[in-house]
Amino acid sequence: MVQLGANRYGKAEVRLVHVARGAGPDGRDLIRDWNIWSSLSGDLASAHRSGSNAHVYPTDSQKNKAYALAKELGADVPPEAFAIELGSFFVSSQPPLSRARIAIDEFGWSPIGASGYSFARSGDLVRTTVVHVDEGAGPGGGAGPGGGVGPGGGVGISVVSGLKDLTVMNTTASEFWGYPKDAYTTLPETKDRILATSVNASWRYRPDAVAAGLDWDACFAAARETILSTFAGTYSYSLQQMLYTIGTALLEALPSACEVRLVLPNKHHYVVDLAPFGLDNDREVYLAGDRPYGQIEGTVLADDAPEPGLAWD
Amino acid sequence: MVQLGANRYGKAEVRLVHVARGAGPDGRDLIRDWNIWSSLSGDLASAHRSGSNAHVYPTDSQKNKAYALAKELGADVPPEAFAIELGSFFVSSQPPLSRARIAIDEFGWSPIGASGYSFARSGDLVRTTVVHVDEGAGPGGGAGPGGGVGPGGGVGISVVSGLKDLTVMNTTASEFWGYPKDAYTTLPETKDRILATSVNASWRYRPDAVAAGLDWDACFAAARETILSTFAGTYSYSLQQMLYTIGTALLEALPSACEVRLVLPNKHHYVVDLAPFGLDNDREVYLAGDRPYGQIEGTVLADDAPEPGLAWD
Amino acid sequence: MVQLGANRYGKAEVRLVHVARGAGPDGRDLIRDWNIWSSLSGDLASAHRSGSNAHVYPTDSQKNKAYALAKELGADVPPEAFAIELGSFFVSSQPPLSRARIAIDEFGWSPIGASGYSFARSGDLVRTTVVHVDEGAGPGGGAGPGGGVGPGGGVGISVVSGLKDLTVMNTTASEFWGYPKDAYTTLPETKDRILATSVNASWRYRPDAVAAGLDWDACFAAARETILSTFAGTYSYSLQQMLYTIGTALLEALPSACEVRLVLPNKHHYVVDLAPFGLDNDREVYLAGDRPYGQIEGTVLADDAPEPGLAWD
Amino acid sequence: MVQLGANRYGKAEVRLVHVARGAGPDGRDLIRDWNIWSSLSGDLASAHRSGSNAHVYPTDSQKNKAYALAKELGADVPPEAFAIELGSFFVSSQPPLSRARIAIDEFGWSPIGASGYSFARSGDLVRTTVVHVDEGAGPGGGAGPGGGVGPGGGVGISVVSGLKDLTVMNTTASEFWGYPKDAYTTLPETKDRILATSVNASWRYRPDAVAAGLDWDACFAAARETILSTFAGTYSYSLQQMLYTIGTALLEALPSACEVRLVLPNKHHYVVDLAPFGLDNDREVYLAGDRPYGQIEGTVLADDAPEPGLAWD
Repeated sequence: MVQLGANRYGKAEVRLVHVARGAGPDGRDLIRDWNIWSSLSGDLASAHRSGSNAHVYPTDSQKNKAYALAKELGADVPPEAFAIELGSFFVSSQPPLSRARIAIDEFGWSPIGASGYSFARSGDLVRTTVVHVDEGAGPGGGAGPGGGVGPGGGVGISVVSGLKDLTVMNTTASEFWGYPKDAYTTLPETKDRILATSVNASWRYRPDAVAAGLDWDACFAAARETILSTFAGTYSYSLQQMLYTIGTALLEALPSACEVRLVLPNKHHYVVDLAPFGLDNDREVYLAGDRPYGQIEGTVLADDAPEPGLAWD
Repeated sequence: MVQLGANRYGKAEVRLVHVARGAGPDGRDLIRDWNIWSSLSGDLASAHRSGSNAHVYPTDSQKNKAYALAKELGADVPPEAFAIELGSFFVSSQPPLSRARIAIDEFGWSPIGASGYSFARSGDLVRTTVVHVDEGAGPGGGAGPGGGVGPGGGVGISVVSGLKDLTVMNTTASEFWGYPKDAYTTLPETKDRILATSVNASWRYRPDAVAAGLDWDACFAAARETILSTFAGTYSYSLQQMLYTIGTALLEALPSACEVRLVLPNKHHYVVDLAPFGLDNDREVYLAGDRPYGQIEGTVLADDAPEPGLAWD
Repeated sequence: MVQLGANRYGKAEVRLVHVARGAGPDGRDLIRDWNIWSSLSGDLASAHRSGSNAHVYPTDSQKNKAYALAKELGADVPPEAFAIELGSFFVSSQPPLSRARIAIDEFGWSPIGASGYSFARSGDLVRTTVVHVDEGAGPGGGAGPGGGVGPGGGVGISVVSGLKDLTVMNTTASEFWGYPKDAYTTLPETKDRILATSVNASWRYRPDAVAAGLDWDACFAAARETILSTFAGTYSYSLQQMLYTIGTALLEALPSACEVRLVLPNKHHYVVDLAPFGLDNDREVYLAGDRPYGQIEGTVLADDAPEPGLAWD
Repeated sequence: MVQLGANRYGKAEVRLVHVARGAGPDGRDLIRDWNIWSSLSGDLASAHRSGSNAHVYPTDSQKNKAYALAKELGADVPPEAFAIELGSFFVSSQPPLSRARIAIDEFGWSPIGASGYSFARSGDLVRTTVVHVDEGAGPGGGAGPGGGVGPGGGVGISVVSGLKDLTVMNTTASEFWGYPKDAYTTLPETKDRILATSVNASWRYRPDAVAAGLDWDACFAAARETILSTFAGTYSYSLQQMLYTIGTALLEALPSACEVRLVLPNKHHYVVDLAPFGLDNDREVYLAGDRPYGQIEGTVLADDAPEPGLAWD
């Protein structure tokens, strides 16, 4: 009468800090500070129905492998490459498991002084990646041509990278007007407002670019720079328009990416009414609101973007 | 070269507390304490491409309508019914917008004393619902036959309800063994461990049951009771098996539901090694770990479950 | 030129779950779920000035002792008694250290079903305690007569217990008017508003009652009940008056306590203006605000309360 | 039988963003992004005992005054100066109220691009200040000589400034050994470990320096730089020694400060045991732990530091 649908399991939030002494720029230590999620799926019906764990590769072993692999690969490996290796290990070594999802958050550290071993956490954003390794899929994430990556042929790999918690603000150059009015309209139109948001951006790499190999760190740096400069350089009529402009700019800046998804909360700044106190307030003093807030979500794709398969799962 | 993909926008976290004086059980006040998300989609290409807001029904108006609708409907309306009405208003009154997603978290309050107006926040769980109202879809959530609900014909409505943050523990009656061993296995098998999790459960209602009308509060109460009693009554060999058992029990307890999704973090409790201090520790003193933790996600469906369409979006 | 002032160090947030099988009411398991902070002070000048750790009892050992002590004392020991024992061990076994501060948060669990081993986390409040064991002080917390408790004579022990995160609401029976008006007054007076707060209450026990021994669990239960019934039974003209009334009631309900401190945030609920939408709103639909919020802090003491010494440190 | 002890009340978390267009360095906009707490005390016995609000200056008016004052003073006013003015207004305009505590958190923004109006939130630390204005105290925070600041004579003003959430790490140059051993010692000694902490530092300014006027922004910049360079430049034998070294360096760098308080959590990084997997791990791969953590708190004072009075309250 009932059936088991989609399912997966794994280890969440494996905190791993990798120090490669002297291996960074200018002979400084190189630090990779990660939070890792691994999630596996495949032939797990008996685990659910009978309690047999014969196919359940323990989440504890998943964690152990993550730490061991870090040692094996070294700290100069970017999170995307690490995730591909980790996911590939799981699906290749565990025949009942056909698919792995690896997600990594990377926290940034900035050098302090000249010692080479002192750092302060950056705090301005979190770098992210989500990688799927799918034995069942054809190469290229289940869509289109492209060479498979990983230990065997016929394995589809998808890579989505991004950033989150990047809070930005334009203190002007933002309007909002011309919207539908009805009985529930109380918002006045404005030709000048603060536009602030916390950028959550993800871009999906083209399967053939993944297969050919990419400089993941350089791609991330370019994406980060593009987001910042586009936000600063765009005169805005709505957060939707800003979203689309950033998405388009990212696709231009990253030829290896074919799809961008953005979630942009509208961090409202309300001009405080000071008239009761005999003061004017010409866009000077604002109340930064918490809740509610607008939330804008959207996707921008290249016309030739291959199907995503499970890349965004 | 680029195109606009899936998108939506709306107002997030509208905090609404509705008091109906004397309208609750035993003449007490009735309280509905909600956090509401509304999200709209439709013909929004020009908003993204040109900055025209002619189709952008403001998120501020969405918020206003939510408060006004609460007054109109009264506090005895369950969150599911409220969400259906709110979403239907948006898609019916704004021709360019064809789809609304309304999500509501409900926080519980328990009466204090006999005054009828004093309450303490329950804190044991959060009730949830996610409703889609989709003009574009055929009736029944975009799949299969079934009567449309809402102000017009041909509107598909899907209702997913659930609960989250319900933390439960079995201090015994849980084993974990028989799993694959490899070079990364350090976890010992166990025939007796603590099983603790924070239940995040969602169930999708059948479109025809939605169309016929349901006692949403009674369904929720039955689901909550089923989750608690099934967790307590199940001898566990893995969290996967517990997930499947709860999912199956929910489908049995709620004939109006056709699909259950569960996310169960494994809140690990480690037996502390007291041997260095000359003490044994026979499953008495545990360390409650934070990170990493296991995470088990799965779906259980009725064999005749209609396609979900966008219900889980 | 510079001197070392007050200092302390310790282990924070030792998560300990103690299960005593069958030892609870009705033969159920007894659970103590704690978060423990230990903090030590004494002759630590050389640790700060020269880096010598000869007097620094490691925080890792503090953690180990907490787990070992739990085993030794059993799960039926209340947090106050556990904290006294733990603090006494540190100051008595480490001659350079003269003072220990032990704080414990206790999380509640409610039984599910009849198995005796299944529980759900309560979530309505957190029970707290802060104990100081002070070798340097005379008995009784450094003030007044009273027998010392602990492994040696002349040790002062103070016990503060409490609760936090108890969110309560009166939907009426609350006024606020008669306050000073000036150029910055925009708030209208009200004869009927929602009064909601998250109670953070602490009560200091009398040193002689601590020395004589107390039923800590019974005291906590009485205090919790008193807070709830007083909140529900008090017609309020301000949160200050509510604070004082609760404080007074606690001192009456707990003869063994001599001082109460309360922190009561005013969780504002704003009546939403629905007039623009042609609707009245007679205290029905509220917006639950986040920030800013009022914050009321106050102390109520018995006239004969001994000096607190470091009890509140 | 009971008496009212220490009490205060006010408005918490007033979020204020002040934009001064073109007033920043290089003609950029100047942004002050603040979270403000105001808290008042004085003759409030009747408010607590009888519910009379005749002396209760509303927290809503406190909030209004904060926004109005921002407009009046302009965005180039540092948080310390703003807090002094705000607190002085309350105590001077409300005779029953004799003391104000104003706390401000300031969030940093870094410019993006050349527009002058685009910014990204820094996220590396939060700047803090706590100011007391005390009519009852003599000048100088209730202690020692010094000129009063504010609208009237005989008003004591204390200023504590600081920073928090500054996470720093030395990947080496840290040892921990030579500590007392007992039955609960399992921690091995180490001559090389990661030392990481989240700095919470506060420094109290000398009353006479406050009275004479200070360049608050320059003092903060010097303190921040001193903390970073001292952390990076100190070979550590314990976090206590690091605390004392930072405190001493701050007193040297800020002659206008007389007392420093530091709270330094020990963010433990554990070398992962990879031996079970046939790998060595020479301080390369670490697990970043959450709980428990060490917590080191301490004070460093100038020998001639005046009494703090309520400065740290």
